[in-house]
Amino acid sequence: MTTPSTPFTRPQGRSAQSLRAVEIIRNYTIHAEGSVLISFGNTRVLCTASVEEKVPPHKKGSGEGWVTAEYGMLPRATHTRGAREAAKGKQTGRTQEIQRLIGRSLRSVFDLKLLGEHTIHLDCDVLQADGGTRTAAITGAYIAAHDAVTWLLKNKRISQSPIREAVAAISVGMLDGQALLDLEYVEDSACDTDMNVVMTASGHFVEVQGTAEGQAFSRQEMDTMLDLASAGIAKLIDLQTQALAS
Amino acid sequence: MTTPSTPFTRPQGRSAQSLRAVEIIRNYTIHAEGSVLISFGNTRVLCTASVEEKVPPHKKGSGEGWVTAEYGMLPRATHTRGAREAAKGKQTGRTQEIQRLIGRSLRSVFDLKLLGEHTIHLDCDVLQADGGTRTAAITGAYIAAHDAVTWLLKNKRISQSPIREAVAAISVGMLDGQALLDLEYVEDSACDTDMNVVMTASGHFVEVQGTAEGQAFSRQEMDTMLDLASAGIAKLIDLQTQALAS
Amino acid sequence: MTTPSTPFTRPQGRSAQSLRAVEIIRNYTIHAEGSVLISFGNTRVLCTASVEEKVPPHKKGSGEGWVTAEYGMLPRATHTRGAREAAKGKQTGRTQEIQRLIGRSLRSVFDLKLLGEHTIHLDCDVLQADGGTRTAAITGAYIAAHDAVTWLLKNKRISQSPIREAVAAISVGMLDGQALLDLEYVEDSACDTDMNVVMTASGHFVEVQGTAEGQAFSRQEMDTMLDLASAGIAKLIDLQTQALAS
Amino acid sequence: MTTPSTPFTRPQGRSAQSLRAVEIIRNYTIHAEGSVLISFGNTRVLCTASVEEKVPPHKKGSGEGWVTAEYGMLPRATHTRGAREAAKGKQTGRTQEIQRLIGRSLRSVFDLKLLGEHTIHLDCDVLQADGGTRTAAITGAYIAAHDAVTWLLKNKRISQSPIREAVAAISVGMLDGQALLDLEYVEDSACDTDMNVVMTASGHFVEVQGTAEGQAFSRQEMDTMLDLASAGIAKLIDLQTQALAS
Amino acid sequence: MTTPSTPFTRPQGRSAQSLRAVEIIRNYTIHAEGSVLISFGNTRVLCTASVEEKVPPHKKGSGEGWVTAEYGMLPRATHTRGAREAAKGKQTGRTQEIQRLIGRSLRSVFDLKLLGEHTIHLDCDVLQADGGTRTAAITGAYIAAHDAVTWLLKNKRISQSPIREAVAAISVGMLDGQALLDLEYVEDSACDTDMNVVMTASGHFVEVQGTAEGQAFSRQEMDTMLDLASAGIAKLIDLQTQALAS
Amino acid sequence: MTTPSTPFTRPQGRSAQSLRAVEIIRNYTIHAEGSVLISFGNTRVLCTASVEEKVPPHKKGSGEGWVTAEYGMLPRATHTRGAREAAKGKQTGRTQEIQRLIGRSLRSVFDLKLLGEHTIHLDCDVLQADGGTRTAAITGAYIAAHDAVTWLLKNKRISQSPIREAVAAISVGMLDGQALLDLEYVEDSACDTDMNVVMTASGHFVEVQGTAEGQAFSRQEMDTMLDLASAGIAKLIDLQTQALAS
Repeated sequence: MTTPSTPFTRPQGRSAQSLRAVEIIRNYTIHAEGSVLISFGNTRVLCTASVEEKVPPHKKGSGEGWVTAEYGMLPRATHTRGAREAAKGKQTGRTQEIQRLIGRSLRSVFDLKLLGEHTIHLDCDVLQADGGTRTAAITGAYIAAHDAVTWLLKNKRISQSPIREAVAAISVGMLDGQALLDLEYVEDSACDTDMNVVMTASGHFVEVQGTAEGQAFSRQEMDTMLDLASAGIAKLIDLQTQALAS
Repeated sequence: MTTPSTPFTRPQGRSAQSLRAVEIIRNYTIHAEGSVLISFGNTRVLCTASVEEKVPPHKKGSGEGWVTAEYGMLPRATHTRGAREAAKGKQTGRTQEIQRLIGRSLRSVFDLKLLGEHTIHLDCDVLQADGGTRTAAITGAYIAAHDAVTWLLKNKRISQSPIREAVAAISVGMLDGQALLDLEYVEDSACDTDMNVVMTASGHFVEVQGTAEGQAFSRQEMDTMLDLASAGIAKLIDLQTQALAS
Repeated sequence: MTTPSTPFTRPQGRSAQSLRAVEIIRNYTIHAEGSVLISFGNTRVLCTASVEEKVPPHKKGSGEGWVTAEYGMLPRATHTRGAREAAKGKQTGRTQEIQRLIGRSLRSVFDLKLLGEHTIHLDCDVLQADGGTRTAAITGAYIAAHDAVTWLLKNKRISQSPIREAVAAISVGMLDGQALLDLEYVEDSACDTDMNVVMTASGHFVEVQGTAEGQAFSRQEMDTMLDLASAGIAKLIDLQTQALAS
Repeated sequence: MTTPSTPFTRPQGRSAQSLRAVEIIRNYTIHAEGSVLISFGNTRVLCTASVEEKVPPHKKGSGEGWVTAEYGMLPRATHTRGAREAAKGKQTGRTQEIQRLIGRSLRSVFDLKLLGEHTIHLDCDVLQADGGTRTAAITGAYIAAHDAVTWLLKNKRISQSPIREAVAAISVGMLDGQALLDLEYVEDSACDTDMNVVMTASGHFVEVQGTAEGQAFSRQEMDTMLDLASAGIAKLIDLQTQALAS
Repeated sequence: MTTPSTPFTRPQGRSAQSLRAVEIIRNYTIHAEGSVLISFGNTRVLCTASVEEKVPPHKKGSGEGWVTAEYGMLPRATHTRGAREAAKGKQTGRTQEIQRLIGRSLRSVFDLKLLGEHTIHLDCDVLQADGGTRTAAITGAYIAAHDAVTWLLKNKRISQSPIREAVAAISVGMLDGQALLDLEYVEDSACDTDMNVVMTASGHFVEVQGTAEGQAFSRQEMDTMLDLASAGIAKLIDLQTQALAS
Repeated sequence: MTTPSTPFTRPQGRSAQSLRAVEIIRNYTIHAEGSVLISFGNTRVLCTASVEEKVPPHKKGSGEGWVTAEYGMLPRATHTRGAREAAKGKQTGRTQEIQRLIGRSLRSVFDLKLLGEHTIHLDCDVLQADGGTRTAAITGAYIAAHDAVTWLLKNKRISQSPIREAVAAISVGMLDGQALLDLEYVEDSACDTDMNVVMTASGHFVEVQGTAEGQAFSRQEMDTMLDLASAGIAKLIDLQTQALAS
């Protein structure tokens, strides 16, 4: 695709470098040890953290804990209704890819030894989708996981927080030669490149997943996208900090 | 179980004949033709209605439409986390029983001929569970279905509403010799009998499902429970009417 | 559906209040601890009770036993051949609903403590279907379970019968404004309402499952159907008693 | 295993060359176009033949028909209860092997051109097992298939029988150096070799499946077993002929 | 099918009694305890033997080992691409039949007591198919199993070889009245009868599986095929011996 | 993990910037339109390209073709035997992730309009694994796809090549503060970061997937890894060109 003369205009006049409105509601449901409803614009994901007093077989007897994630999308979270995975009897490859990504991202900031033999299950369920469900899920799951850790500390199951630092995620893309932060659905569909970046509070990368959906991207475009993502994630980590302080 | 001298006291001093607080939020999500978040106390179910311009094979070419339902529960909607059905690769018998019940209940008030060859998919997803998820789902799904019908009329896909009358559902139970309306989780677990009743605005029964979980119930208890349920459903139908009027 | 001037005439001149011919053959197969072939007219179900010396995980170490049921239909038990569930790789929602109903019904008359840590598996397989397979299954499974209990007593695995009383089931329906007992297939298909009732020898209800398939039913119709079912079940319990005495 | 001095004595004093009592009941159930309950001693298999007016994709438009089989065993057909395949969600390798064998055996005597574009589904369900279920199934399925063909002729769906000749099956085995016909369960378990033979009325082999379960078998043992099987099948084909004549 | 005047001519002028070129490459891959690439003409099967230090439940605590096999075909091993079984989510009946045959064949020459509580897993994966994949698999798996046993002896896990003698397999068929050894794909498709024979070095039969695909076969044809197979297997056992000696 | 004083030494004295020995064998199997055995050191992947004359539903009638990939690993391709996915009845999340990556990577260099309504199925089956199976698969699949395109041109199914340019892939990692190219298994397991890079002949990125498995990585490390990967892929594209020229 050649760069057109008039670049893409973002919905609602958003600038290329802006995040959508982020809303974070803690304690959204009552049963889970951590429960966060996070919105990136119209994308809305319910992230719960459940503490279980046992670990999967590969951690049994190790003295270490485990952090794992599952992801789902309600059938009508999207423009047209998608098939219910439970009814079809299997999760799509996309679902598995996303939940593996969420799990790895969260584990990257956990000291599993300090967690002791507990499992934290992160369930990220998309109530409404408009692009960026996996990045909202990671960003919200961090807060839910933090609340679950607070619960573990308050209930004296562990004596020291296993969380080393905050982690958050954002998408960036190239559209008409322009780098855009936090793609919404119409942008994501139109982009040549879609990149999801997961970073820690200290500014290191946990995951970088860039995919050329149309034309392949140059090293310079890569650099621009990484810069944009780094700035966006710094803002998200501020918002996480505020939410946890409230 | 013999009737104890001091009867069961309901949480929060609720009377035996009272419904829990009912909250109905229409247009809860943006993509679905009908989208309702309904709460019966702490039970919270998201009901969406999705219109599809085709019908299942057994209705193809009949000129008639179809109304069908699926039900799910988020893993941590409950006190302890349940396994995700999509990950296990199958829906439990309980899930299938409930979604079949919701589908039959809604079809009972539809004139499928007037619906034309459209399918209305009702997705009832439990965000938080505290007893009565199936009755909240039916009550909310009716409103979502009504909104989807309004959408069909406004978009000139059909010329006359296929809905004959309203339908709603409530549970009743016998506990310590006392009939209770709208059981919450702790009551449901303690009850000898649990009955779910689905009725129309004109006061006729669509479904009656009574199950003795402890001691079997007498004809007189049956009669008492049906009276209680009828009164409760009349109130729910008022609330549906108000919600649709707003 | 409005009541027509000429009411429905039952096949073979059966009166509205009559059961079909019931046949009960004990010890139909040689391996099972209880094995009963039961017929309600042309509906023929093989019910076996198998004793296992262990209990499912949720009963392990409780000192209590368990009673559970599975239901199946041979592919050509019906007018047109149905797909074999084992070949399709899953049980339908209908199958699961029925086997859960059979299990609950039988457990309602068992004192699981007196059963000790044994499981009784009830397998109800429909050899020929003509309406009422689930009610025949429950009625036959009771006899098979009773024979298995006799086996447990004779083999000194338990010292006291855990069966509190007999249980049986029958269907009733409303057709052309008339209440009919023990629906056969052509009646079941034509009915506005189909109700399955499970009762004990002492005349208490274990399950009442009424479904309006056409027009919803009134409270008065409900009462008529319950009366009819109660009378029918009393006759079935007599027949069970005779069969067990022979 | 070396040949012991005292050879194996068959249950009930049966001679090495004798079949068990064979019982054939036609029209055992009412819905199927062919329905046969066949017993080889305590082994009892219900064989139904269902006619369908369409063919699988690989025969569509060919003008030819198809004959196919499915096999199942009720959970308590055996000494100890086996898991229900429908509940486990898949058929065992053994089940698939047997149903493929039954299908091939029956097709071997059919002229699929004369059958026209019809499918005959043979369902062989074991009600009680005591060795030889697959051979009883083939022998009974032939009669059920024959009855279905008679139905097709009588209903003028086809004008000429597609059956070329009869087919039947029997097992033979080597036990303690002795060749035995029609193995029952205790013999089957004890045998060094188990062979299933399927033959036509004209004395030709359709299938020979010999398996050394203990010590491998010599060419001479092979010859003895084939002789014994051939004689046994000739008797079975007489019994099929009598059953079809009655 | 009547015998035509001009008999079938084999591809590349092969005589009716000849094997295709057999190639055996040991240590084809580096990780497995035994790893053999075997070719029968264009049929090429990779057979690996993996030693595991535990046994399946039915052998636990018995002091005996187990030998088991799995079989697979790469999607484009064949003329037209077949569906990948892992993607479809189940193995075909054919696959299960073959892997059960390979397992039984190999176990027939093993003394499971001498193997101790080890399992040998034989994986036979077809890289290229041209008829006879199961016979090549058995013949190659024997060599892989032998190498795994050598590894067990060298690593002092066992002190004595559990292998009693060699085992190999070949196919034979009747085509136009002529018996042919080692059928390749075009011959297999054309044959009236296809027989797979598994034999030991001492000339005893382990498995004989003959199937009439067209016209049933006579006793005399059976005898001719068994003679041909016996001669072919003797040659294969020589080739196995040479390969193991090199 | 802190950087140790003595950095990691690569197996066989390989330099940090070197690829392992790459071997490419075209026409490895006879049936597929493209068939390549590619080795990156001990990693050996069989890549076949199969042409099908139809497209999946979402491309039907579009005039465009489709390119898709499936990935599998033989059970004993690895150090310890892994479960066979076909036997378990499902593909792991890892398998799905990899096959989706291969598909996207290959589609990125195809003009699907020029392919017409054909599907190219790329099957990448790992015969032996030692790290880098997905990068070897992409690199080999490109050659197989190119051979399939040559076949399409030669057989006049299409008139112009739909391939725009070459594509290849390599892994890079950070280990003890050192960036390493083309990780083998022991290196991959030890690395803090593992990155897979897919690039075109013109030096643009198609996919960048970097994952911190231990400590998160800095922007500078990211840059170093991208440089290293770009150089490695340039060499691979030379090797592809040579292979296709031979």
